[in-house]
Amino acid sequence: MSLIVHKYGGTSMGSVERIRNVARRVAKWHKAGHQMVVVPSAMSGETNRLLKLANDISARPSTRELDMLASTGEQASVALLAIALQDIGIDAVSYAGWQVPIRTDNAYTKARISSIDDARVRADLDAGRVVVITGFQGVDEQGNITTLGRGGSDTSAVAVAAAMKAEECLIYTDVDGVYTTDPRVVDEARRLSSITFEEMLEMASLGSKVLQIRSVEFAGKYQVKTRVLSSLTDPDIPLETEMASGTLITLDEEGQDMEQAIISGIAFQRDEARIAVAGVPDKPGIAYQILGPVADANIDVDMIIQNRGSNGKTDFTFTVARGDYQRALEILQAEVKDHIGAGSIEGDPKVSKVSVVGVGMRSHVGVASQMFRTLSEEGINIQMISTSEIKISVLMDEKYMELAVRALHKAFGLESA
Amino acid sequence: MSLIVHKYGGTSMGSVERIRNVARRVAKWHKAGHQMVVVPSAMSGETNRLLKLANDISARPSTRELDMLASTGEQASVALLAIALQDIGIDAVSYAGWQVPIRTDNAYTKARISSIDDARVRADLDAGRVVVITGFQGVDEQGNITTLGRGGSDTSAVAVAAAMKAEECLIYTDVDGVYTTDPRVVDEARRLSSITFEEMLEMASLGSKVLQIRSVEFAGKYQVKTRVLSSLTDPDIPLETEMASGTLITLDEEGQDMEQAIISGIAFQRDEARIAVAGVPDKPGIAYQILGPVADANIDVDMIIQNRGSNGKTDFTFTVARGDYQRALEILQAEVKDHIGAGSIEGDPKVSKVSVVGVGMRSHVGVASQMFRTLSEEGINIQMISTSEIKISVLMDEKYMELAVRALHKAFGLESA
Repeated sequence: MSLIVHKYGGTSMGSVERIRNVARRVAKWHKAGHQMVVVPSAMSGETNRLLKLANDISARPSTRELDMLASTGEQASVALLAIALQDIGIDAVSYAGWQVPIRTDNAYTKARISSIDDARVRADLDAGRVVVITGFQGVDEQGNITTLGRGGSDTSAVAVAAAMKAEECLIYTDVDGVYTTDPRVVDEARRLSSITFEEMLEMASLGSKVLQIRSVEFAGKYQVKTRVLSSLTDPDIPLETEMASGTLITLDEEGQDMEQAIISGIAFQRDEARIAVAGVPDKPGIAYQILGPVADANIDVDMIIQNRGSNGKTDFTFTVARGDYQRALEILQAEVKDHIGAGSIEGDPKVSKVSVVGVGMRSHVGVASQMFRTLSEEGINIQMISTSEIKISVLMDEKYMELAVRALHKAFGLESA
Repeated sequence: MSLIVHKYGGTSMGSVERIRNVARRVAKWHKAGHQMVVVPSAMSGETNRLLKLANDISARPSTRELDMLASTGEQASVALLAIALQDIGIDAVSYAGWQVPIRTDNAYTKARISSIDDARVRADLDAGRVVVITGFQGVDEQGNITTLGRGGSDTSAVAVAAAMKAEECLIYTDVDGVYTTDPRVVDEARRLSSITFEEMLEMASLGSKVLQIRSVEFAGKYQVKTRVLSSLTDPDIPLETEMASGTLITLDEEGQDMEQAIISGIAFQRDEARIAVAGVPDKPGIAYQILGPVADANIDVDMIIQNRGSNGKTDFTFTVARGDYQRALEILQAEVKDHIGAGSIEGDPKVSKVSVVGVGMRSHVGVASQMFRTLSEEGINIQMISTSEIKISVLMDEKYMELAVRALHKAFGLESA
């Protein structure tokens, strides 16, 4: 008998029929002898419905009240799932985050979990109950409800699994695992049976949005065995089939798996925009003077490049999401250009980023050159390059993105295991 | 500076625009120097929506989970109202019942408030904040969420007003007060400027459903000055006008008001059904043997009459809501008739109850005879009579009900103050 945590997304909880299916699936695991903790999201559309009400009432709703409001979606979900479990004869009980309690700091709308007291949940499990816990939320030291931010239910599930030393945390979602790249772009995209936490982090932040990034960090930090799998399969498929499906996110233990591919996948971000501030005086503090006002406007900056300058001048280039392009340009023109004495500000709102990701590249030279050669053979011009230990990203004209992804997927042999 | 509690019903909270209006009204009171606690219901339709989901999932959802589910409606409301207040510059904070805390027993779906800790709320009020508290719900000693039953937000508001010794508890609703009878039946029906708690109890239980009965009991027990008034007026009307509107529910201090009318109002219950068990052996325990199985089926019994019998036999007659008539008959036929050796079971599913209510009848003889004479003059046959200290109820054929209400309203001079 082992402790298993299941997490179900909003789509899986989206209707009475789907909630019943979740209950059947959980019941199957419970009957197989596992202690079960289940973390469902709010029913799909519910969180948006609530936040729209708040935004219709006020242009700047307070974050404390937004959390009070949004947390109700998950509370309704846990009650409904407990009812569905009881209806098929499974003893079940639901808890809101504050009842467990799941303690967080008081950074409303993006709180971080500080501790989980599992005594109450453990007592229920020992009494044979399935415990259903709200995702996405907790309680601060003053007893205020907090939420963990969008996708926070993934983090809740992994955190509960970590705190309770669960055997495995299964994240049920509307995709059946993590792929070598987006199957809508490359027909030969292949589901990975496993991926390391670090690769998953790079894949997630680069657009393969299967899991909330923080949940992956959490899973890595506390070494929680986490599996991403489909909630759309028949809930009554054999347990063994289900346990072998999806993608397992594993510890990175180098050398353990000699067959480890060098590259795990090709990630991409379609809607990027590039902004270049040219002829900038090359002196300390210039990056902050350029990006400070941009960050103050809540615009996220992705890739950043500053070339070594000549004649005391340098070029400073960075990328933002395409939707932020116009606003970022305006801020730079109004607040930055004259202030720092830049020569010009120009940009391109139609660029995309393509990345190869893999822990294998740590010990294999030549990944970068292989990547650049492939793109060159396809006649694709590289506008910017940035690298991390397990990732190489290049920026290109949007129109070449799909071609680049397909060519790289083939060049690194990702279509076969 | 005095402490005022406002309660707003689901209709008053039914849309973004209405929530804004509630905020404006509360702001007006706050700016006039009052400390404000506000108890809003769930947005209209929300509680039904949630309970329908539960009932679609299970024919017998557990009451604990129903409370977990239904309580989310009020939690969303308090957050939205706090946001609306903040948007017009009023410092406000919302609390769920468990955060106050409002402690209850653990009778899910019909819990009773045991205590309210006002320290946290008091600190906010002293800091100049408007405090918005969920109605309808509390928390038991084990930290489970409980609800007080339909209309429970009225009780929450009065209980908070009692615990905090508020100057007045204002219940805003979609009617502008308590009337001498239903204005849809009698054109001359008049709004009462005041009514005693006891009269209100009789009026409420008899169909003038303006307030939840338990809230009136609570208001009476703890002597909370409670006013029922309209939420549909312009939120910016002068405070003095608003304070003089609606109906004040007052302590019954006999003799204080010499002008006190003998009768305060005519209440009625349209959809009643009468059931007679005839030829019952006249011996102890017979009432329990007849009504026990009916109560076990959760059927509420209203009027009960047992005539003194002759020849060792008696007739036992009672009324139920019309919707329970068939089921009650079936239970009596199947479980009671032969068991107790009754002669026959018959009934009439189309009867109505009309009552005159007034504390004045305590010291005025002749109310009953005036009532019976009036009905006789209209040719209305009385099927059953029951009386309490401040109420006389008669049962009649449904078709005479409106005629009876109009005739009695006139006979007791209720059209003029």
